[in-house]
Amino acid sequence: MKRSNRLVVLTNYFLDNPRKHTQLPYFVDRLNTTKASVSEDLDIIHHVFQSEGLGYLKRTTGAAGGVRFIPENSETLSTSFIEKLCSKLEDAERILPGGYLYMSDLLGDPKTVREIGRVFASAFSDKDIDVVVTVATKGIPLAHATASFLDVPVVIVRRDPKVTEGSSVSINYVSGSSRKIQTMVLPKRSLQEGANVCIIDDFMKAGGTITGMINLLGEFEANVKAIGVLAEADDEEEERVVDDYTSLVKITDVDIKKRNIHVQPGNMQTDQVK
Amino acid sequence: MKRSNRLVVLTNYFLDNPRKHTQLPYFVDRLNTTKASVSEDLDIIHHVFQSEGLGYLKRTTGAAGGVRFIPENSETLSTSFIEKLCSKLEDAERILPGGYLYMSDLLGDPKTVREIGRVFASAFSDKDIDVVVTVATKGIPLAHATASFLDVPVVIVRRDPKVTEGSSVSINYVSGSSRKIQTMVLPKRSLQEGANVCIIDDFMKAGGTITGMINLLGEFEANVKAIGVLAEADDEEEERVVDDYTSLVKITDVDIKKRNIHVQPGNMQTDQVK
Repeated sequence: MKRSNRLVVLTNYFLDNPRKHTQLPYFVDRLNTTKASVSEDLDIIHHVFQSEGLGYLKRTTGAAGGVRFIPENSETLSTSFIEKLCSKLEDAERILPGGYLYMSDLLGDPKTVREIGRVFASAFSDKDIDVVVTVATKGIPLAHATASFLDVPVVIVRRDPKVTEGSSVSINYVSGSSRKIQTMVLPKRSLQEGANVCIIDDFMKAGGTITGMINLLGEFEANVKAIGVLAEADDEEEERVVDDYTSLVKITDVDIKKRNIHVQPGNMQTDQVK
Repeated sequence: MKRSNRLVVLTNYFLDNPRKHTQLPYFVDRLNTTKASVSEDLDIIHHVFQSEGLGYLKRTTGAAGGVRFIPENSETLSTSFIEKLCSKLEDAERILPGGYLYMSDLLGDPKTVREIGRVFASAFSDKDIDVVVTVATKGIPLAHATASFLDVPVVIVRRDPKVTEGSSVSINYVSGSSRKIQTMVLPKRSLQEGANVCIIDDFMKAGGTITGMINLLGEFEANVKAIGVLAEADDEEEERVVDDYTSLVKITDVDIKKRNIHVQPGNMQTDQVK
């Protein structure tokens, strides 16, 4: 195969298989070329990925040597994406009764969701995550997008047990905003003991839901390595019960009367600038 | 920019922006090259995409001429993926009480989910879909994957209204298997009237849930252009209420005593072979 064709095939392969380790002979075979040519192809792709801010190819040498694509957004890309997100969220039409914000359109847009996943996966790239955990319903697309870039599975915590998932572990927790006692359930066979977990959710106020998830994950002796929330909002009545999290945006003022919202970059941005 | 670099940039661009129409001057500018060179690049990518079974580049000429990437799995790719899926599902360990099958691991694997989405999007490529609709919870990842290849948004029907979505339209329907009366809700602002809709769900037995969705979508005067279900199963007690659907796999026998399952390709495969 000619170099130009090989570059298209290889670029597609890496984008379709993030973090997957592949040995060079596989490519030599598949592309019907030499190891030296593949090696040059990989150099080209590596440099373009880097200059485009998409991530990089990580080469390993030795007998089982090979290459994997590590998707990592450049800071510039993440920053400009988050800024766009903030201005989209500041639209007064989003204000719902009770001071909530309508975000379902953004969470229903595959491109936005994919971008959010890319930003989280970049932020947690070195955390050695085994599985992404979220709670039904709205966090699911974000969890899947993040997991696809980390090349790990998604496990969904539910608020109601389903017959189609077998025996489960459940806990009760107090919802931060409504102060009601609620239940969370995770099927036994869905998570291995001692897994390194990344929690992803769409929204955090007092943090009750995430605390509940941490407790439930404790039953599986999981290590919570990272917590990512799309949007955090201040809860005036209550102190936040979760400290160590990464948020993309922060909703600071929702003035229902004046129909005014203020949305600023979350703590990820501040941490990155340091 | 050199051709080799341009090919990497362009391949990434198309894979990241399926079905998006882009005018050639955008690429000329971005890649700092000539229109003739871009045109040659596009030819190369088009041919590689075709020979790899990934889809094709669709060129439009004239003043507003440009190009869009139409992702379409080749029949060979779809067939071999569906066959693998069948054999994964035939694992006796999946049998749950009540004759249900544990599928959460597959629905939690981003790569499998993406592949399912690619197969549905290929099947519905010419249906002029405006939006993918699913019902919470398990269909959500499949709906997002399908929507990402069709470049349309996802709308999620819920079984319980949420305060964070504003005013809603709801209907009652009779669940096929439990024969209970259930509720389905869709926020008013989530779907425009008269939209062309594709329904995606993970599982269909008698089809009660999908009939419910069709009725709810009727309230929005939506046109249901396609229905895709990952797995269909026979319901001995009841006739199927939905006729026109596309299934990837069909679960024909779940023998709990003998711990035996039979899974075969669904009607999409048979339709394609015709």
